[in-house]
Amino acid sequence: MTAISNQRILVINPNTTASMTQTIAKAARGAAAPSSDICAVTSAMGPASIEGYYDEVLAIPGVLTAIRDGERDGADAAVIACFDDTGLDAARTMATIPVIGICEAALSLASFVARRITVVTMSHLSIVPVEELVHRYGMSSRVRVRAAGVPVLELENPASNAVDRLRSEISSALGEDHAEAIVLGCAGMADLAASLQREFRVPVIDGVGAAVKQAEALLALGLSTGKRGAYSTPARKPFTGLLSGFAHEAEPAQ
Amino acid sequence: MTAISNQRILVINPNTTASMTQTIAKAARGAAAPSSDICAVTSAMGPASIEGYYDEVLAIPGVLTAIRDGERDGADAAVIACFDDTGLDAARTMATIPVIGICEAALSLASFVARRITVVTMSHLSIVPVEELVHRYGMSSRVRVRAAGVPVLELENPASNAVDRLRSEISSALGEDHAEAIVLGCAGMADLAASLQREFRVPVIDGVGAAVKQAEALLALGLSTGKRGAYSTPARKPFTGLLSGFAHEAEPAQ
Amino acid sequence: MTAISNQRILVINPNTTASMTQTIAKAARGAAAPSSDICAVTSAMGPASIEGYYDEVLAIPGVLTAIRDGERDGADAAVIACFDDTGLDAARTMATIPVIGICEAALSLASFVARRITVVTMSHLSIVPVEELVHRYGMSSRVRVRAAGVPVLELENPASNAVDRLRSEISSALGEDHAEAIVLGCAGMADLAASLQREFRVPVIDGVGAAVKQAEALLALGLSTGKRGAYSTPARKPFTGLLSGFAHEAEPAQ
Amino acid sequence: MTAISNQRILVINPNTTASMTQTIAKAARGAAAPSSDICAVTSAMGPASIEGYYDEVLAIPGVLTAIRDGERDGADAAVIACFDDTGLDAARTMATIPVIGICEAALSLASFVARRITVVTMSHLSIVPVEELVHRYGMSSRVRVRAAGVPVLELENPASNAVDRLRSEISSALGEDHAEAIVLGCAGMADLAASLQREFRVPVIDGVGAAVKQAEALLALGLSTGKRGAYSTPARKPFTGLLSGFAHEAEPAQ
Amino acid sequence: MTAISNQRILVINPNTTASMTQTIAKAARGAAAPSSDICAVTSAMGPASIEGYYDEVLAIPGVLTAIRDGERDGADAAVIACFDDTGLDAARTMATIPVIGICEAALSLASFVARRITVVTMSHLSIVPVEELVHRYGMSSRVRVRAAGVPVLELENPASNAVDRLRSEISSALGEDHAEAIVLGCAGMADLAASLQREFRVPVIDGVGAAVKQAEALLALGLSTGKRGAYSTPARKPFTGLLSGFAHEAEPAQ
Amino acid sequence: MTAISNQRILVINPNTTASMTQTIAKAARGAAAPSSDICAVTSAMGPASIEGYYDEVLAIPGVLTAIRDGERDGADAAVIACFDDTGLDAARTMATIPVIGICEAALSLASFVARRITVVTMSHLSIVPVEELVHRYGMSSRVRVRAAGVPVLELENPASNAVDRLRSEISSALGEDHAEAIVLGCAGMADLAASLQREFRVPVIDGVGAAVKQAEALLALGLSTGKRGAYSTPARKPFTGLLSGFAHEAEPAQ
Repeated sequence: MTAISNQRILVINPNTTASMTQTIAKAARGAAAPSSDICAVTSAMGPASIEGYYDEVLAIPGVLTAIRDGERDGADAAVIACFDDTGLDAARTMATIPVIGICEAALSLASFVARRITVVTMSHLSIVPVEELVHRYGMSSRVRVRAAGVPVLELENPASNAVDRLRSEISSALGEDHAEAIVLGCAGMADLAASLQREFRVPVIDGVGAAVKQAEALLALGLSTGKRGAYSTPARKPFTGLLSGFAHEAEPAQ
Repeated sequence: MTAISNQRILVINPNTTASMTQTIAKAARGAAAPSSDICAVTSAMGPASIEGYYDEVLAIPGVLTAIRDGERDGADAAVIACFDDTGLDAARTMATIPVIGICEAALSLASFVARRITVVTMSHLSIVPVEELVHRYGMSSRVRVRAAGVPVLELENPASNAVDRLRSEISSALGEDHAEAIVLGCAGMADLAASLQREFRVPVIDGVGAAVKQAEALLALGLSTGKRGAYSTPARKPFTGLLSGFAHEAEPAQ
Repeated sequence: MTAISNQRILVINPNTTASMTQTIAKAARGAAAPSSDICAVTSAMGPASIEGYYDEVLAIPGVLTAIRDGERDGADAAVIACFDDTGLDAARTMATIPVIGICEAALSLASFVARRITVVTMSHLSIVPVEELVHRYGMSSRVRVRAAGVPVLELENPASNAVDRLRSEISSALGEDHAEAIVLGCAGMADLAASLQREFRVPVIDGVGAAVKQAEALLALGLSTGKRGAYSTPARKPFTGLLSGFAHEAEPAQ
Repeated sequence: MTAISNQRILVINPNTTASMTQTIAKAARGAAAPSSDICAVTSAMGPASIEGYYDEVLAIPGVLTAIRDGERDGADAAVIACFDDTGLDAARTMATIPVIGICEAALSLASFVARRITVVTMSHLSIVPVEELVHRYGMSSRVRVRAAGVPVLELENPASNAVDRLRSEISSALGEDHAEAIVLGCAGMADLAASLQREFRVPVIDGVGAAVKQAEALLALGLSTGKRGAYSTPARKPFTGLLSGFAHEAEPAQ
Repeated sequence: MTAISNQRILVINPNTTASMTQTIAKAARGAAAPSSDICAVTSAMGPASIEGYYDEVLAIPGVLTAIRDGERDGADAAVIACFDDTGLDAARTMATIPVIGICEAALSLASFVARRITVVTMSHLSIVPVEELVHRYGMSSRVRVRAAGVPVLELENPASNAVDRLRSEISSALGEDHAEAIVLGCAGMADLAASLQREFRVPVIDGVGAAVKQAEALLALGLSTGKRGAYSTPARKPFTGLLSGFAHEAEPAQ
Repeated sequence: MTAISNQRILVINPNTTASMTQTIAKAARGAAAPSSDICAVTSAMGPASIEGYYDEVLAIPGVLTAIRDGERDGADAAVIACFDDTGLDAARTMATIPVIGICEAALSLASFVARRITVVTMSHLSIVPVEELVHRYGMSSRVRVRAAGVPVLELENPASNAVDRLRSEISSALGEDHAEAIVLGCAGMADLAASLQREFRVPVIDGVGAAVKQAEALLALGLSTGKRGAYSTPARKPFTGLLSGFAHEAEPAQ
């Protein structure tokens, strides 16, 4: 009898808050195929939560480290589990395994079930950055962005009213934006998709599950990042100071 | 011992050419998870191949019939296996199961592995319609469309030079468009993706496999078409003449 | 004395409801030049009214049949009198006479008399499809779409409040959208344009009259559909099943 | 016996070159309905030909004067017969009769017969301004602009090679741009449309004829410029110096 | 001792109202470097204030005259101090010195301090023209346009409530548009920027000061208008009538 | 006698290569007003040169550190002297002084002197990222991006042919793109702008000088980053690991 080892999907929480990683891991495992092992990791450096441009860029070195280490240890694909798709392009450049962001994955799946879509994120600081992602992904004409107006870490606090605020924004999205589907704009909400979908009787898409399925899709089809042009392997060159460990060692692909 | 039945994914070939359905079925099965049964059907009415606007609209009633019958017979999701996403919006309106087009699915996966993408389709008649789909899917700034300049049915003819023409356009896409990934713009090419990817060392995406994986993603996450707004169930009303069988019987969702 | 025969403009009602064709015919004749004969026909197959994507695609074979028959019987141009421009691209591909849609014609004329325009259509199901047409015609930045929220066939019912609902939306368009002109987004409203224009003192454009004038313009200038590229004559090929009568027989143009 | 007077369409040549007005008048009369009288006038002030931004703005006062005088003398509609749609928005603001530009009219008709369109203008100085008009009219994705590289006034010189240069650019448009229709981007070419259409077997659209038909369309439908918002009647106010005669006297509409 | 003469920046008020020029001159001098001399002039021909398309085009000959005379008299750069960037492209074509518009300058600076921006202009007639400028400058997705609903000349009337109306619109911009910066959309408001910025604690940008700084930037870097393509020197040709003085005499650049 | 201290403009080289900082400093000083002191610093951490997405994100912590330290030490404004505007949004969020990127500054000035613009950058890896910046800044329709195809650090090597390659691309930009101005797409080219402008007789814009002037403009007008919305001060929260020093301490503005 031969054991066939599962494929390994690395799911990185770019927020350095381990309790959020639990939520993410559970959502990822709930979505994964039996043939996928989910390896959920908390980024080892950066902000406890990501709200706006500043937090985002400082979370990227942690994400890149996690992907580099994960690829070395045998991961077959990586998911970046923060809705600003933290460091996604840099990760694709660095890695040879495919890398998926939860914003792009959620928007893709949403586009298959609805024409008008509303993203509900947590912090008001995230509205403009998420709108820019939506624009970059070519979906500005179909997608609105709202915020519950609650700090991300409140999702980890059972006593907070974060979920009520989220539900209130979903109601507004349905009534005012004429949304036909809702995308949850924060990895920390991943456990809420199913119950909100039942409550509001409208597709509710969590990006963590969506990204796991996209990673599986790429693996099943033998696809990984194209290494010509924008995602070419970085040239080898000196790195200085605190980040000197990030100097890229691989030979660029011919 | 309890048998757990697999999910059933209906894959419709909108071209009424059965030999092409073989190619499509094989690609679909190659991509499908063990838990998915692929049910590939050839549309029972319409043109032998779809090249341009005229063929496309006349293929739609056959696609809708196949999806209606498939849903009645227990299909859990449907894939429309023609690169113009034949009748996709109408199908989403009619069906309660999720429906995926191979163009939208291929472009989504391509966007996860490359910034600049070239679609290579068969007939010159398809260039403008595919460009319009690309625009509708928000990817005009990243995607170019080329044609091999060969009728679709030549792909079924082993003696034709269709594949050589296709390879020539891929070379041009890499050299002139600086494409970082290639999308095969015709379901009849589905068997060629793997070998072309090896030959050109660039991701080559077939929409049939891509769409099967997107259908599985939606099913795994419990998602289907939103029934508010654009995809609301059609109102019950009289239909006349040749197409009177298409009168919609279901009560619209509340 | 020599009789000069008039040019014949075929006006097709894609909705299979004859009473609506009366309204359309009257509007077409009111707009036509003395040298134009209007031949108004009700489509012989498809839904009684067109509301949303499903109805639209199932109305197309009837539209194509009417244009094919009309061209054979000597029509010089054709107008498709439903605001979703039902089957317009396919018709242009099939026919050699010019074909005009009432949405595109109405938007063109509106753009000559106003910068900000609001379309008021009947059913909420039509909002997103009409928005997509507006986008396709390059006018998203100037045009808003509203719906009276009434089924199309209510326009045929003298006891309904459809016209009041329409008037209410026009008021909102003027007050909230700052519309400078109104486009009536349904062929069944064609008789209302003049009185609404008087009432609201703003240009009110009916697409049926607009399209008749565009057809006359093309005929006067000796223009018809270009047969290179997107609108090339369909290739001759087998058609199967219910729609086998649609197999295209003509030789493609060189 | 009652005489019914014809409607009068004023056609203004913004270039102060009378021989060009002959060409324009002939094209306008060739397109006009029997019920339309064409009144072609040469602008009384400004540049002999319009090539680029500088000439364009200095031609506007002459255009406005001609429209003001024409409206006073009973014109029912006005056509601005220069491809940069010289002063079109200002004219719509000033006049109560409808005003049509030949660029917007030509692009509208072209959009009814082709998806991909190339404009061929005379001077290289006009390429960028015409591209901006195309963009403003929402047609950037379908329209390319080329120039014959010949001064406009060379069209008035029988010994010039202007027409050969024009024909050469049309060939390039068909071969390189895959144009499906050609728009002549200068009023001085209006007499060439029919012969070029025969020669190249592709729709060739002259804006002068196109605009006359659009003016007739608006008149037939009882439409004129909307006087809310962008085209509101100018407020009465003092004007100084050379242009003091342009002070607007009418009361703005309420 | 050697005197180094300052650079001269011509600031033209296209509105022929001298009191407004005082406000503009003061704002320009407040922004200018010690090495810049501001030469503020009132246009000698055209409307007393510019509100909408009609006023705008009739202000252009005055602007061009002022720039031509200013360049002849030694100006090193020119600023057009009306928010519709009156005649900007024509001026760049005509002049060899750099020319800056206050709308483009204000939007550029605003884009460096905010993502979401609201322009507040005076007259409702200016909303659509300014929106078109915003679109032309590529900033539609970030910029909203509002009007105080007051005639421009009311800014010159100390008894008017124009400033209160302006303040009210700024409040709405912050609350409803989520504006992060305010651009004052009329040169006549130039003196209000500093106090409004203090009051609302948000960047408030006046275009006059912004344009003076951009003119200084171009001069410091030795940059002026490129004379290939769109801004090529106009060809020498006859001009007729009232505007015959505008015939361009310079030889075009090679 | 009172000494008035100059304003201090911090110019950060995000590439950790000190010789490149010399070039940048020289260009900055050449552009600066007498009242500005240029403080040029080399980033203390990250890659020796920035080519593509990977290098870019790893350069950001160094940029942020330099700006934080610079602001603490009295800088009045900051310039990020790498053409990918490395970390610009994060820096604006973090800092209270205004921050300018050289790409945005160069494109702004270029838009004041030309309609069609070509950026010539060094490495092919930078083409797609720079195209994305151009798109984000709303200038896609006017700007093309080319690369000399030489590693950035070759600019520091006097024996390289980098400048010849750059000159060759400028020639192509003028001939093929019909560029009316050239933007140098790398801070390391800053010393070449003047001589290339003389050679090619077309405006050549270096971003370093452009950004210094924009910083001076903001300072002269009392403008800094708006602290509502996208650029709100980051919330105080824990940071972990290597980057724990980046935890933001300031109280967010109310």
